[in-house]
Amino acid sequence: MPKPNETPEPTQIIRKKTGNYLEDFRPGQIYRHKGGKTITEGLFTTFTEFAMTTNPFAKNARYARAYGFEGLVCPPGVVMLVAFSQTVEDISENARANLEYIDMKFGAPVYIGDTLEVETKILGVRVSSSRPNLGIVHVQSTARKNIGDATEAIVATWQRKVQVYKGDEAAPVEDFAIDADEIECELYLPPYDPAARLSELAHLSSGDSYFEDLEVGSRIEHSRGRTVTDEHISMTAILDNTSQVHCNQFMIDLDPKQYVGGQLIVFGGIPFALCLGLSCPDVGDNALGDLIYTTGRHTAPLQAGDTVFAATQILDKCDLPGRDDLGIVSTRLFGHKFVRAEGERFEDAPEGWKKVQIFELDRQIVVKRRSHYA
Amino acid sequence: MPKPNETPEPTQIIRKKTGNYLEDFRPGQIYRHKGGKTITEGLFTTFTEFAMTTNPFAKNARYARAYGFEGLVCPPGVVMLVAFSQTVEDISENARANLEYIDMKFGAPVYIGDTLEVETKILGVRVSSSRPNLGIVHVQSTARKNIGDATEAIVATWQRKVQVYKGDEAAPVEDFAIDADEIECELYLPPYDPAARLSELAHLSSGDSYFEDLEVGSRIEHSRGRTVTDEHISMTAILDNTSQVHCNQFMIDLDPKQYVGGQLIVFGGIPFALCLGLSCPDVGDNALGDLIYTTGRHTAPLQAGDTVFAATQILDKCDLPGRDDLGIVSTRLFGHKFVRAEGERFEDAPEGWKKVQIFELDRQIVVKRRSHYA
Amino acid sequence: MPKPNETPEPTQIIRKKTGNYLEDFRPGQIYRHKGGKTITEGLFTTFTEFAMTTNPFAKNARYARAYGFEGLVCPPGVVMLVAFSQTVEDISENARANLEYIDMKFGAPVYIGDTLEVETKILGVRVSSSRPNLGIVHVQSTARKNIGDATEAIVATWQRKVQVYKGDEAAPVEDFAIDADEIECELYLPPYDPAARLSELAHLSSGDSYFEDLEVGSRIEHSRGRTVTDEHISMTAILDNTSQVHCNQFMIDLDPKQYVGGQLIVFGGIPFALCLGLSCPDVGDNALGDLIYTTGRHTAPLQAGDTVFAATQILDKCDLPGRDDLGIVSTRLFGHKFVRAEGERFEDAPEGWKKVQIFELDRQIVVKRRSHYA
Repeated sequence: MPKPNETPEPTQIIRKKTGNYLEDFRPGQIYRHKGGKTITEGLFTTFTEFAMTTNPFAKNARYARAYGFEGLVCPPGVVMLVAFSQTVEDISENARANLEYIDMKFGAPVYIGDTLEVETKILGVRVSSSRPNLGIVHVQSTARKNIGDATEAIVATWQRKVQVYKGDEAAPVEDFAIDADEIECELYLPPYDPAARLSELAHLSSGDSYFEDLEVGSRIEHSRGRTVTDEHISMTAILDNTSQVHCNQFMIDLDPKQYVGGQLIVFGGIPFALCLGLSCPDVGDNALGDLIYTTGRHTAPLQAGDTVFAATQILDKCDLPGRDDLGIVSTRLFGHKFVRAEGERFEDAPEGWKKVQIFELDRQIVVKRRSHYA
Repeated sequence: MPKPNETPEPTQIIRKKTGNYLEDFRPGQIYRHKGGKTITEGLFTTFTEFAMTTNPFAKNARYARAYGFEGLVCPPGVVMLVAFSQTVEDISENARANLEYIDMKFGAPVYIGDTLEVETKILGVRVSSSRPNLGIVHVQSTARKNIGDATEAIVATWQRKVQVYKGDEAAPVEDFAIDADEIECELYLPPYDPAARLSELAHLSSGDSYFEDLEVGSRIEHSRGRTVTDEHISMTAILDNTSQVHCNQFMIDLDPKQYVGGQLIVFGGIPFALCLGLSCPDVGDNALGDLIYTTGRHTAPLQAGDTVFAATQILDKCDLPGRDDLGIVSTRLFGHKFVRAEGERFEDAPEGWKKVQIFELDRQIVVKRRSHYA
Repeated sequence: MPKPNETPEPTQIIRKKTGNYLEDFRPGQIYRHKGGKTITEGLFTTFTEFAMTTNPFAKNARYARAYGFEGLVCPPGVVMLVAFSQTVEDISENARANLEYIDMKFGAPVYIGDTLEVETKILGVRVSSSRPNLGIVHVQSTARKNIGDATEAIVATWQRKVQVYKGDEAAPVEDFAIDADEIECELYLPPYDPAARLSELAHLSSGDSYFEDLEVGSRIEHSRGRTVTDEHISMTAILDNTSQVHCNQFMIDLDPKQYVGGQLIVFGGIPFALCLGLSCPDVGDNALGDLIYTTGRHTAPLQAGDTVFAATQILDKCDLPGRDDLGIVSTRLFGHKFVRAEGERFEDAPEGWKKVQIFELDRQIVVKRRSHYA
């Protein structure tokens, strides 16, 4: 071995491409993403509790078992964070923005110890007419747990549209669009067993968030806010999210005008999960599961120091066929923050502040009825 | 579902009350707190190690098992953090300050995987004569583990007095005071077994903190300090502590003069646990358990950027009836920080700095005798 | 007990010495370090993922089991962080700098639930001729897991040289040097089993980092950077590293000129593990284990706010006798950061920035051959 101070001149310098560019995607191509992720208790706690989830399925193993789950259950925001992040390197490491979440559905429950692996099919590419170095990639991703084991199951599937840069501006790119696959992904709902006397545990969840309580037309301004710190950098790394705008301040410092305040951008999955958590005491504490997020998007970036708030509007309610004990509630979840607007006065913000919406999600949840559970 | 940009006008805006106000508390009323909390390895590690606990029962499973425990043992500061936090929403979300901890006793050991649930009885209310929008609430809380299981046991019980705001200043509030319950809460102490040859593990704990070493009248200035960062925000969220003064910077920014430096306040449980940890190498490394904290209080707030130090004065020592191998040590634990005092000179601080006491706890610990363990 | 405000005057004030000084070390002396450390899932996740490790052995339990491991495997950087930190109090709490890592070898795999204990032998002391209050201590440390259990094994052994202060400048210190022990520490490599059809899992690791891909003479500039925040303070505490320059800002504030920017120094183990992680997609994803780090050193300090990058030069390659499926790759791993250098222009940095090397490690890894695994 050469001595420490005598490293020979390299014969070549290699800088590997990370992620894919617009011209790399092909119709129907399938990416089986690297890594995979076992849900450790460390991962579970970090993200469940960061998000301020209050649903006892994610906090109280006694409660979760009484309902028929095997133990603590990963909240949907955490399933989303872990599964989505697995797709970043292949799909969106070179993205400008994630444009839309579409038909995100949840299936089997995810427990501590489960290993998630994700694959993504390329459904479409459309070059921007105004900005030829950019285009929209439309993908469909599916997350499975415990492949090859008796407990193998789909835990989530979703589509998304993401704005991706070209690697080589001169590369020719043809638009294409193919149909999404039909993915069998049905939300697991533990059966209702009157003998389990679950009403004896009713004090462990909030008393005013049953199906009967959620009134169509109401908008609930969730009371609590949560300031996000630069903790987001390590959280993003823990998720294996490889996008450099979330964790490489030097890259920002080289071109600070490109980024608000010269600051790193918080990975969108983090406000996604946090808004779900902030809404939990009012609309999620008695949810047995999240059925589908039909559409969702980030409407403004989030950065360290911002305080996140959330609100939920109840759009609709209906029965769940075959389950008298449950109902489906259609909601629209909003996330927002406040930015300084010195001297200005807006109706929906304190003087000197402006309210900025950061997130919106159309979300259908399966909610317990008080008649059966309280 | 309405389109994303066409959310209908809500029929009503709901802003739920969070927590209770002075006028809400009734004599003898019992709150069974929501949530409950399973001790995951993530939670265990985050808080045990944050606090810089050095007692091997919380770090070394081989050592803990050799003593007769089932595995790693939650240190008392962590039991306190988790159990106390469960009571915040109902009791102190609308508090101005926590005034006193009283007779905090520990019972069964808490292991990873145990689920804690807590209930609180209202013992008294006393309206402030000088500030009619405030009053003192006196409560008694009890934390159980694994309710309904063969391992069900009380793990801690304590009283506290907390200064709580009125929600409606005009609401009439009558003072009341009732007796505390007698709660059976005896510290679990594994039996002494000479055949276990525990002295072979003596090198794993500090060699100068046995019962014989702790001299009545001595004050030990613990050597190490620990700077608290804005990590406290996520730590508080992980504990389900819902008080907004710990995690909502926007609320502070609306009225920064109300808060020192316009900064969030660190949840008191954090310096509580940290002071226990900082004192551990000198007085806690050979403790088999913490018996009782007869009284304790926060004497100044802590904020991100402050460095916490601790000291312990040995007040008294006595035998533990029936256990030749152990003794009881009565201590007073102090926490302090330094604040800048330019140009000033105080006896107990470097020039330009002033020492500020932040915490005080009267603490009785059960300590191993060198004669039996080393 | 005296009343809270009536603490009696102490009979004595005790300030304990922490750690050892140059004059305390004796030839051949053995320290069995305190504490020991059980690898919880919290500890595992915090450090594995902080380091951005991408090797699936540390992320995907299904993959690790298919290869013959019992479950997720601690990456070598995490074994190093935990084991090394156990030695800090006795060896380097009063150090000025860690000068060199020597012959760090890995043995048995470390799993979640394993308990590590470490001992250190003093091999040498040499007083500085130019600075009589300093000297170099040369030690050999060995980390075992699960002592007394059927799974007891050596997991790592290494030497290091560290520059330690005298406690009493007048204390006489004699130089000495003794031979290092021969420690049996052979890297565990799961046997190759063609029937396991491991190529079916090849998509879970990077496709271009097999033995065949790593060309002698090449230097790979790893693409991603990671900004380190003041998270390092709590990370250091989690590791039981007691050195105050990593976590006591008040100590820095008393003498800020001694520390770059008046800031805490990041514990060297953190960039050590992070550089290993940043290099992982390019050179570590298909490593079955790390064989030896023959020499390594920190060449500049790291502080909160710095962004860490890494590069690997391939120095040599050879067969591994008896294992057609594997080969040994000798590499030199570099860590670097950029500091502002306004108006200046360096060849290897963007204008206005200067590249500063922070770390260097001669590292031999055992890498899978594509011929057998892909």
